[in-house]
Amino acid sequence: MKKNVGIVGLIFPSPVLVIGTYDINGKPNVLTVAWGGVASSDPASISIAVRPSRYSHEALLRTKAFTVNLPTVQYAAEVDYFGIVSGRKANKFATTGLTPVRGEHVDAPYIAEFPYVMECEVTHTIDLNAHTLFIGEVKGVKVDDVLLDIDGNISWEDARLLTFDALARNYRAPGEHIAQAYQVGKKFISR
Amino acid sequence: MKKNVGIVGLIFPSPVLVIGTYDINGKPNVLTVAWGGVASSDPASISIAVRPSRYSHEALLRTKAFTVNLPTVQYAAEVDYFGIVSGRKANKFATTGLTPVRGEHVDAPYIAEFPYVMECEVTHTIDLNAHTLFIGEVKGVKVDDVLLDIDGNISWEDARLLTFDALARNYRAPGEHIAQAYQVGKKFISR
Repeated sequence: MKKNVGIVGLIFPSPVLVIGTYDINGKPNVLTVAWGGVASSDPASISIAVRPSRYSHEALLRTKAFTVNLPTVQYAAEVDYFGIVSGRKANKFATTGLTPVRGEHVDAPYIAEFPYVMECEVTHTIDLNAHTLFIGEVKGVKVDDVLLDIDGNISWEDARLLTFDALARNYRAPGEHIAQAYQVGKKFISR
Repeated sequence: MKKNVGIVGLIFPSPVLVIGTYDINGKPNVLTVAWGGVASSDPASISIAVRPSRYSHEALLRTKAFTVNLPTVQYAAEVDYFGIVSGRKANKFATTGLTPVRGEHVDAPYIAEFPYVMECEVTHTIDLNAHTLFIGEVKGVKVDDVLLDIDGNISWEDARLLTFDALARNYRAPGEHIAQAYQVGKKFISR
């Protein structure tokens, strides 16, 4: 039996998307965002939702560029700090000791230490009141060797990328394998 | 040292969003979608990306309504089946034995057996070529008792909701706790 609850507009799991931008003075800044997802496969596009009050919002509108940096579990504290402090007041790279690198394809910095980085160009900006939804087309992807298998294919299965529970407000590791996609459901076909 | 790879526009983790709609004959249908996320907090809004070729695409345009049903790990096979078969040819509820229930707030069915259900009304439709991004405002949320703690608050921490790795193409369980959000990052403040 289901119970009606308040308007809890949440999804589990949330990704942990660390968004890199340049501020108006060219200072690299990062913001952690849990509201976002893949928006299209072709052109490969990522959506991120950012409150207008956030310092990165101005940068996104002005540069029309951002990076998406996926962290591993050992960076949980840095990632959390990126979300609770404003780049107006803090130099988040200096404080954490992480390294900004100028993007190759877009006017935004990425984090050298994070293993998976997408460079995105803003193609759509949608005002959704509390948040603005920015859709960015992926212009380039860089990964660390640790994510490449011996054939050069990306594999993040063993990389322990960080995940987020927005309801419990905690970070989690990837969990154990449950089933192979595009396979386990075949048992229902031709029933 | 980072290596450039192809345009791999993916995020880890992906959610497993089972989307309920009514087809033109009023038949309840479900589609599993991994491209999506929270789009705004107020009004609470969810984005889902659906290929124009999918049967649900027509229903989303016509009814401007959908449900988002979050599965637990024991429904991995059903969820997978919902993604690999078209509702044009199959009655996915009948095949799997799951129970469609008419939504209370929108013109879309939800899955009785799934513990967390959001009813959404489409507010924005954005053509992104390979996928259409539908943004739905959350009009009501229903949860099973199993997600309610003794104070009536929602908690899905122990519910083993299903997660997805779009690169490895497998389903995973939630992983172990790493850190408390809005807390662990405070160690960098006033450094």
